[in-house]
Amino acid sequence: MAANEDRPSEDALIERYFAPLAAPGGLKLRDDAALVALPPGTELVTTVDMVVSGVHFFADDPADSIAEKALGVNLSDLAAKGAEPIGFLLALALPTDWTEAWLATFTKGLSKAASLYGCPLLGGDTTRTKGPLVVSITAFGSVPHGKMVPRTGATPGDLIAVTGSVGDAALGLKIRAVPELDWVNALNDRDFAFLLNRYLRPQPRVVFAKALRATASAAMDVSDGLVGDLAKMLRASGVTGSLMIENVPLSSPARSAIASQPTLLVDAVTGGDDYEILFTFSPERLDAIRALAKTVGLKISVIGEVKTGDAPLSVTNRGETFLTRTPSFSHF
Amino acid sequence: MAANEDRPSEDALIERYFAPLAAPGGLKLRDDAALVALPPGTELVTTVDMVVSGVHFFADDPADSIAEKALGVNLSDLAAKGAEPIGFLLALALPTDWTEAWLATFTKGLSKAASLYGCPLLGGDTTRTKGPLVVSITAFGSVPHGKMVPRTGATPGDLIAVTGSVGDAALGLKIRAVPELDWVNALNDRDFAFLLNRYLRPQPRVVFAKALRATASAAMDVSDGLVGDLAKMLRASGVTGSLMIENVPLSSPARSAIASQPTLLVDAVTGGDDYEILFTFSPERLDAIRALAKTVGLKISVIGEVKTGDAPLSVTNRGETFLTRTPSFSHF
Repeated sequence: MAANEDRPSEDALIERYFAPLAAPGGLKLRDDAALVALPPGTELVTTVDMVVSGVHFFADDPADSIAEKALGVNLSDLAAKGAEPIGFLLALALPTDWTEAWLATFTKGLSKAASLYGCPLLGGDTTRTKGPLVVSITAFGSVPHGKMVPRTGATPGDLIAVTGSVGDAALGLKIRAVPELDWVNALNDRDFAFLLNRYLRPQPRVVFAKALRATASAAMDVSDGLVGDLAKMLRASGVTGSLMIENVPLSSPARSAIASQPTLLVDAVTGGDDYEILFTFSPERLDAIRALAKTVGLKISVIGEVKTGDAPLSVTNRGETFLTRTPSFSHF
Repeated sequence: MAANEDRPSEDALIERYFAPLAAPGGLKLRDDAALVALPPGTELVTTVDMVVSGVHFFADDPADSIAEKALGVNLSDLAAKGAEPIGFLLALALPTDWTEAWLATFTKGLSKAASLYGCPLLGGDTTRTKGPLVVSITAFGSVPHGKMVPRTGATPGDLIAVTGSVGDAALGLKIRAVPELDWVNALNDRDFAFLLNRYLRPQPRVVFAKALRATASAAMDVSDGLVGDLAKMLRASGVTGSLMIENVPLSSPARSAIASQPTLLVDAVTGGDDYEILFTFSPERLDAIRALAKTVGLKISVIGEVKTGDAPLSVTNRGETFLTRTPSFSHF
């Protein structure tokens, strides 16, 4: 519990690696706390997600991808609430074997994601641990007053939709964990890289926040598997619904993998780490939503319908029961 | 990375242990993100501190004291900025051997501190880790627009003061680490318990926030040792100063310990975890500050003076040089 003389101090680390990520004109990370400025007429939305080596990522994942994931999962939560990013706080527990080279790459990835999504570093805390690396990020966003998209607003008759493609990250995790599986060997290099990258570097749907708050009745981000997360959102809204697996959007690489091993379809719709946005909306808004999504370069797919009652979510594939349970991926 | 079937799910933990700590009428921790309501005319102040088992506390410290410390160190940062608490986010990485009994005691301590300081739980994230327990708390507070007390405002001619008493926690840590030292054996039971408790359960000076923003030119909380933190605040302000050790407030238990082992005075003024507030102010405000502190039951002690220049902080005891370096305690 004493200063470690042969390593840079926390203050030196702040100057060297973290201060460049701070917003210009801000406190420059040199005070006990940060001021967060809210645009007029908006409310503050905030979320925290902690990622732990060996649980949410592998210790030898590229350091920049760990940073991108740590920030990305938080930005995904903000986007799912219809919020625009303001900034973030970083709490970092570094393991005993950390190196400055690792930290330089980590902050490079963090800087890239922070710039891309307009979300500067506002402050933080660095400590050490005798255990694995832990990265805890708190992200701040703003929504116009009263416009946060809740998890609880799904209404019978609403359609259920999801952004992008589902299951890539679950397949990417399998590739990362056991690269020598038959179906993995059958992938071409581009598909292999695509799926792995979708696991390593979530792409939070920040650009969809505005469309979402203009149109959605309920939303959440898909982090614990599409089926389980949909069941959770419908329960939170006091309704049930149907999910049509044949309408779930799959990327071309995911389709290739599933073609060579059909059971992977279950993994794709129940595995975690998609970081797509799952949302419900009144059917008359469908055209408006498609148009809004198109303007920001996102695909959306209608995958089900909200229904009255508290029956379990119905999950079918071309009319046949697909799953009788709604398993949820868990990092816990 | 799969659901752990023989333990309650994260959702069950939220319902059982965390939802009772949430503000009434809030999102009840059942959404991806939390809304933070700011009182009109105020700005948001936010801070994050991560505490790690084996670094900031001992794994077998009472679970409620770990919670009190994790929240307390954050509330101390808010208080030092003159901010009133609004609420907090909790990110928790539980080690593989966690038990529900441990978590029940932890949340009991958290609930006690949250109630005492008017700082409800707004949201969070629970994960597991193969390493030691990690608790990362993000606290939110409010200050009237433009009134955050900076670390950078110390002005030549200002007096330097500190709340409460200094060094108790550093001595408490020594007691906790090696209870069989001669000077520890010489303590009476009450003094022993007092010092240990000051280490285990920081008492953030939340009640002093209003007085501070009305009177102080600069402030920070003392977490890394009085001498090092004062040197840091003066450097941040572009000034230097003098610290008179004979004026540093010591509790009666700390005085007893130092009487039996005089070298402990150095530990008291350089050791960490005080969580008192160190601040500077214009001398004509001294009476006003004393009166304000008295109304909230806090003692303040004038311990030095701010001076022009960039010379190292002068640290004297009854006119004699006390320290030639300004060591800083570090959890990093």
